[in-house]
Amino acid sequence: MSDHYPTQSTPQPQDVLAAARILQELVHVTPVFDSSLLNRHCGCQLLFKAEHLQKTGAFKYRGASYAVHALANGIKGVATHSSGNHGAALCAAAARRGLAARVIMPENAVASKIAAVRAYGGEITFCAPTQAAREAGLAEWTERGWIAIPPYDDARIIAGQGTAALELIHHQAEIDILVTPLGGGGLLAGSALAARTVNAPIEVIGAEPLGADDTYRSLQNGARVTDHHPDTIADGLRALVGELNLTVIKAQVADVIRVREATIIEAMRLLWLHLKQVVEPSAATALAAVLEQPERFAGRRVGIILSGGNVDLTALPFTRNQS
Amino acid sequence: MSDHYPTQSTPQPQDVLAAARILQELVHVTPVFDSSLLNRHCGCQLLFKAEHLQKTGAFKYRGASYAVHALANGIKGVATHSSGNHGAALCAAAARRGLAARVIMPENAVASKIAAVRAYGGEITFCAPTQAAREAGLAEWTERGWIAIPPYDDARIIAGQGTAALELIHHQAEIDILVTPLGGGGLLAGSALAARTVNAPIEVIGAEPLGADDTYRSLQNGARVTDHHPDTIADGLRALVGELNLTVIKAQVADVIRVREATIIEAMRLLWLHLKQVVEPSAATALAAVLEQPERFAGRRVGIILSGGNVDLTALPFTRNQS
Repeated sequence: MSDHYPTQSTPQPQDVLAAARILQELVHVTPVFDSSLLNRHCGCQLLFKAEHLQKTGAFKYRGASYAVHALANGIKGVATHSSGNHGAALCAAAARRGLAARVIMPENAVASKIAAVRAYGGEITFCAPTQAAREAGLAEWTERGWIAIPPYDDARIIAGQGTAALELIHHQAEIDILVTPLGGGGLLAGSALAARTVNAPIEVIGAEPLGADDTYRSLQNGARVTDHHPDTIADGLRALVGELNLTVIKAQVADVIRVREATIIEAMRLLWLHLKQVVEPSAATALAAVLEQPERFAGRRVGIILSGGNVDLTALPFTRNQS
Repeated sequence: MSDHYPTQSTPQPQDVLAAARILQELVHVTPVFDSSLLNRHCGCQLLFKAEHLQKTGAFKYRGASYAVHALANGIKGVATHSSGNHGAALCAAAARRGLAARVIMPENAVASKIAAVRAYGGEITFCAPTQAAREAGLAEWTERGWIAIPPYDDARIIAGQGTAALELIHHQAEIDILVTPLGGGGLLAGSALAARTVNAPIEVIGAEPLGADDTYRSLQNGARVTDHHPDTIADGLRALVGELNLTVIKAQVADVIRVREATIIEAMRLLWLHLKQVVEPSAATALAAVLEQPERFAGRRVGIILSGGNVDLTALPFTRNQS
């Protein structure tokens, strides 16, 4: 246990191994799915790591649990601002350690996310739907002694998120390419570090919505861009890539593939149809990358992280126009 | 291997064990899911056997595989009439043995079911959407020497379908109550026989849509009713209960609980929300029975067979009016 937080050093492959040792008693080992019909459709051999079946319905529970585990005893509680899966994950992780959790949420947050935070025992402070209001709201709580747990730009969070890919690699060692969704970059950076823990040369690729392609542009640009106006159905991938995350991605990730909105929806439809799994649009971006560039994946063994399954069932994007 | 088909003797518990020995090499051992939030919501401990993740997306592959396995060598092919999951299951089972399969389908069958039959290598003969036309269409093929494989009213089919419950019981021996959807009665009868293979007293219950309650009425009546005008969203449960099936159900099943349409949809929503599983309305009827009579299940360990996951994603029943 450490008594300081956050950690700003660049995480290393062995940090994912350390996280996995702690998390083996705290998180689900999620199943791995495949489908012969989907393999035939895509022309490659796909293995899907089902993190939508992780506690709280997303891989975010891994990083949150690891960060909460690392906290010193005697703190008042943990806090974050979140309109998405990190908030509920942090509440569940805190509850498990008997800690209070506070989530600063924009007042226009969707009802299902509000309900999820409450279901896992968290308290909510609503704020105006701006970054400034969110940060001010969080500052109020940290000034009272609560510990802020960031959603992705943090070494322990990155290491924790990487344990999903580590499990997949241990489940099926012969993966040629590993594809993950890419938003703030916690999952992609952690997965790339996980891939470096084995001798096999695994190519790690991030899948980023074309409408939120800040990481792609940052890599082209050579430095992190900050002009970012996300417009995508993949609500979990709208965040600006983190500094630490970008550092790891630059060093360890082979490529970022940008995916169109229609391709995300088609990938989501294929996952629901063939795997019978309720995954959210963000989770479908990784398969969308395979659909966008099939020649790149042809005949290869491709690991895919299905990142989450928290979706509004009354507002699904499937229409009769699709095949 | 037997050289005659169909089998009209009443199946026994040991027939399920015999089927399981054959099927262990032919079918998926499907996973078992649970959800602490769903347990809390329902007031009991629920274990869900995920037969929607069986090959072809339904438990029907078990019975079809067992029936096809039992056929003599040298036959021309297998045939059935089906507008649902049995057709695709039979085609896949036949293809595995290198046999041709023919499905007589009503010309108004839904596109996804037609696509499924073709995806598994089956040939289709379309007919008018009447029982008479379906039977006449099937007779044409059996007269040419093809073997008809019925969907449920058959001892081998019943024994094969029972192997899903057998796997669940072996996975978790301490089940108090086992609930399955109830249409033609293959799954329920097979599951009840499976429950009799262990010493523990497992109460077996069928869940039948109120709009297709022919089994409930048959049990009340003391004999099989034939006035049957099904009207339910659970398209897999519209069949009239079979003769052999009713015989087994009378002897082995504790009760049939009728469920309302709104409860089926609410159960389906809960399964998608909490388990993140794409299950069809028919599969949701078993959880709907728990929702209809919560006091009956309170505090018990309840096994549920999720029978299938083949659903039209462009015509889902979820609306904003639901909680």
